[in-house]
Amino acid sequence: MQKQNCMTMPTKGVMTVSNNNADVVKGIKSIAKEVYDKVTKKKAPSIKMPIRALNNVKYNPKIGFFELVGKMKERTLSASTVKTFAQSLLMMNESKKIVETDDIATKREMYYISKNWGDAMFNEQPESDTVMDDIEAMMMTNREQLGFIPEEKGGDVAGKLVVIDRDPDTGKEIKIDCTKFGSGAYSVPSSVEHLKFNTDAKFILAIETAGMFQRLVKHNYWKKANCILVSMGGVPTRACRRFIRRLADDMKIPVYVFTDGDPYGYLNIYRTLKVGSGNAAHINTFFCVPQAQFIGVTPQDVLDYKLPTHPLKDVDLKRIKDGVKNDPFVQSHKEWQKALDLMVKMKKRVEQQAFAKHSLNFVIDKYLPEKLKNQKSWLP
Amino acid sequence: MQKQNCMTMPTKGVMTVSNNNADVVKGIKSIAKEVYDKVTKKKAPSIKMPIRALNNVKYNPKIGFFELVGKMKERTLSASTVKTFAQSLLMMNESKKIVETDDIATKREMYYISKNWGDAMFNEQPESDTVMDDIEAMMMTNREQLGFIPEEKGGDVAGKLVVIDRDPDTGKEIKIDCTKFGSGAYSVPSSVEHLKFNTDAKFILAIETAGMFQRLVKHNYWKKANCILVSMGGVPTRACRRFIRRLADDMKIPVYVFTDGDPYGYLNIYRTLKVGSGNAAHINTFFCVPQAQFIGVTPQDVLDYKLPTHPLKDVDLKRIKDGVKNDPFVQSHKEWQKALDLMVKMKKRVEQQAFAKHSLNFVIDKYLPEKLKNQKSWLP
Repeated sequence: MQKQNCMTMPTKGVMTVSNNNADVVKGIKSIAKEVYDKVTKKKAPSIKMPIRALNNVKYNPKIGFFELVGKMKERTLSASTVKTFAQSLLMMNESKKIVETDDIATKREMYYISKNWGDAMFNEQPESDTVMDDIEAMMMTNREQLGFIPEEKGGDVAGKLVVIDRDPDTGKEIKIDCTKFGSGAYSVPSSVEHLKFNTDAKFILAIETAGMFQRLVKHNYWKKANCILVSMGGVPTRACRRFIRRLADDMKIPVYVFTDGDPYGYLNIYRTLKVGSGNAAHINTFFCVPQAQFIGVTPQDVLDYKLPTHPLKDVDLKRIKDGVKNDPFVQSHKEWQKALDLMVKMKKRVEQQAFAKHSLNFVIDKYLPEKLKNQKSWLP
Repeated sequence: MQKQNCMTMPTKGVMTVSNNNADVVKGIKSIAKEVYDKVTKKKAPSIKMPIRALNNVKYNPKIGFFELVGKMKERTLSASTVKTFAQSLLMMNESKKIVETDDIATKREMYYISKNWGDAMFNEQPESDTVMDDIEAMMMTNREQLGFIPEEKGGDVAGKLVVIDRDPDTGKEIKIDCTKFGSGAYSVPSSVEHLKFNTDAKFILAIETAGMFQRLVKHNYWKKANCILVSMGGVPTRACRRFIRRLADDMKIPVYVFTDGDPYGYLNIYRTLKVGSGNAAHINTFFCVPQAQFIGVTPQDVLDYKLPTHPLKDVDLKRIKDGVKNDPFVQSHKEWQKALDLMVKMKKRVEQQAFAKHSLNFVIDKYLPEKLKNQKSWLP
């Protein structure tokens, strides 16, 4: 296993593990050596990895994300596992090459690389994706650190932030000032492991819809509120979550989340951002944002701000019921249970744009300033 | 109707119409005055707009986009039309206010504004969207010029381009240098009407997937090829199409398109970018990119580059059949008919990432340079 360096600990037990390229290569070599040694001793080699499922996670609000509880699976080389075993080692070899040459590969590209592996070739991309997940879990790292980047991009950013990247050709530092994009924004790359930051902003505001983000950008809201705006565009991608997490950790600033007031905004977008998800428990430690707090739109806001609403759909009611019954996150927070109860009683959901009823910029002039002052109105 | 200024004519018959704010306000006032005059003369006022449907368009490859053929509908004030009539006028009034204050509103926000209109209030957003489409068609403009912006953002950009925006507070020019974002990119705003450009790039390369875009950015491909990279992220949004169109017109540079080699890439992504769509025919003149040319991945590339493929699905075959039978764009281009025929014969589709079989950067070192040199291998 590679060396793990604990860098910052914003919340008890949450670590940012930094693998520089040398560490990754070292980790891969060490696993390969173990396998090689067993084989030369004519023993069956095996590789161990944590089981990735909801029944292998626990949630402790103080730690702040779904953690693995330690059930492991072991893949021992045998007639039936020989192909997957070979594929795992071949993919680790690719990862080593990619990291050593400071290159990147998407999941799709990794699948096509295997077309040169003869009998070990993947027939379908899902096979290749599963092996990648296994390696990620085995190395206890996130696959971006192994050089494998997501297909999707990572959200948009505007406001009081300087991102420090480097020129791919020269390696020279590049400073990207996110106050200088006019009505546009900085688009976060697919992998953010190498980025550094500089900011004196007071907080990060993570926003569900591109439309609301555009309004706040258009009116330079980040200047008034001294903050960094991030557009998640629905459920945030891996890169977007990792970007917010690394930024919040490194700069030690809080994260406030602003979504539609519906079960999708609460239990998909916000919950995924804050604590992660069950089937990806082995990487929650990298992607969760335990310091996130929910500022709105809450069910109580519907009453307080007399907002126009839509009726809850059956799928909304089902999602709430599921959440209350099965989601360790909801079960750990009475405030969320109360909020969801109120929503069920009202039978109403509300959109971020509903404030436009009062006036187009009510959200900037009244709602956000009032909510930010009144921490009691937030949800955990 | 507002004054229309023909600005540039990159292809015969294609005009970029510029409405500055004063022109929009003038146009709205003129329609309102007509209605007012009729009412004061106790005559029934009416408003006219083009019919928005495939049977009201034609396609001439020389002009390069689906054009309206002129069928109009007229909405005369009567007992049955009184509510929609009032809503149209009220929404035009909102547009006037938004444009005069240099603000913006999304479709969703426009719907909520109507909650103050008493009996004329919209009950569902689709009603509000339809009235907005009507006004857009009636004014022969795109709704972004009326202050109404899309919910979605507009694609990512990297490379040899300076975008000139202005500070929302001071109105001062902001120059955004798209060579300076490291592994990140410039995220195009929801509305691009106000942007200006400066570039000496030789072409724009519009790319389907975020993963391929990230590879080209990671390796500074824009520097080697002296070009501008645009990530469309699937079917390009309105803002992305309009951005490419305005950039290509203003800077007089060609547009090359690089998508997966499948019917979705050809007939949805590329066709929509180049000629627009039937049910939005009244705005194709603003959003189409008639100068676009398709460089790959073509069915012939599968053979020439010995690419790994996937079998065509039933939905792919259906889309090809529909296209050949009903799509005026396919019917006008023998080259596309031949390419689709070859695809059906091979029963294969191919992804942009398939080049990774040869090596991760084959696409940069071999494929793109070879294709760009060999115009005969492109599709129109």
